[in-house]
Amino acid sequence: MDTEASDEIMQATYRALCEYGYADLTMQRIADATEKSKSALHYHYDTKEELLDAFLEYLVEDFERRFACESADPRERLEKFLSAVYDSPDDNAGDFPVALLEIKAQAPYHEAYRERLVALDDRMRAVVASAVADGVEAGHFDGADPEEVARFVVTATYGAHMREVSLGESPEQTRKLVESYLDSALGFAPEAVA
Amino acid sequence: MDTEASDEIMQATYRALCEYGYADLTMQRIADATEKSKSALHYHYDTKEELLDAFLEYLVEDFERRFACESADPRERLEKFLSAVYDSPDDNAGDFPVALLEIKAQAPYHEAYRERLVALDDRMRAVVASAVADGVEAGHFDGADPEEVARFVVTATYGAHMREVSLGESPEQTRKLVESYLDSALGFAPEAVA
Repeated sequence: MDTEASDEIMQATYRALCEYGYADLTMQRIADATEKSKSALHYHYDTKEELLDAFLEYLVEDFERRFACESADPRERLEKFLSAVYDSPDDNAGDFPVALLEIKAQAPYHEAYRERLVALDDRMRAVVASAVADGVEAGHFDGADPEEVARFVVTATYGAHMREVSLGESPEQTRKLVESYLDSALGFAPEAVA
Repeated sequence: MDTEASDEIMQATYRALCEYGYADLTMQRIADATEKSKSALHYHYDTKEELLDAFLEYLVEDFERRFACESADPRERLEKFLSAVYDSPDDNAGDFPVALLEIKAQAPYHEAYRERLVALDDRMRAVVASAVADGVEAGHFDGADPEEVARFVVTATYGAHMREVSLGESPEQTRKLVESYLDSALGFAPEAVA
């Protein structure tokens, strides 16, 4: 399958997840969101689970792109991370966190999902830990354990996700807490970055 | 319905959730976990959703009991909170976090569930904030905003729950982070409490 066809299916999966959630997602509904037939979709993916596994891989790559930061400034890299996590990529993304939480709740039943989620967690923690380590080394940040800070920041994003879906609260509330935590742990106040 | 009958149904619901998860939970399966028939169950609860709403109320009350701490010592009250959240109530509880995450993912579709989860969040934050405020006032803790500390501690428990279910990680990892956070925010090291 060429990249264009694959991207079309992944974007259709995203839209169908936003509209129907995970439990009510079917191959037919994903096909309906593309120019393809359901049998054309089955040609590439045997089952909904297989397609969702590819979708999670796509999601990890998309996150990578959004984290990517050419800047050598560790403060900008942390700021970019927080934006990638807390800023919605588009106005129609409102229901995606709901579908994503459903998928996370399925991880115990689908080892393939779990592996993708573990890879995403590893990647997110690595991005934060590397920015913290560089910032401490360059004297921008106070001394701190980069792995511990990274684990805390990433775990808080999961808490923010849970609060958003289960309590209906804006993730901005948690973002402020994380910024306050970074400020006291590193002397890093993201608001001050231009 | 008397308390004993109600408790029997709630404990059966807990066991059935651990065994089947939320999606595959049925009134029949809950009835099978009691001495009652399915129609006896329907006499009290019209639908699975109604029974689950009662179950969440029961869960909030159970949490209240486990948080309850007669001690005047704010350090003991925080320690008790962490135990209530992070220590498993029994050896068979292994699959309950999975079912609970499924229920949380359902909150956007069931306003009654959301109200219970918001009440539980309020209650948890109030317990932590009150212990922090008393500890600051009594000079046991460094000065800190009790509401902010409470929000951080409770949000981290959600992150721990998500990591446990979706990544298969022990919640003890997050508990250590929270203890380290409390140590730097309050000068409170739970390990040091007898």
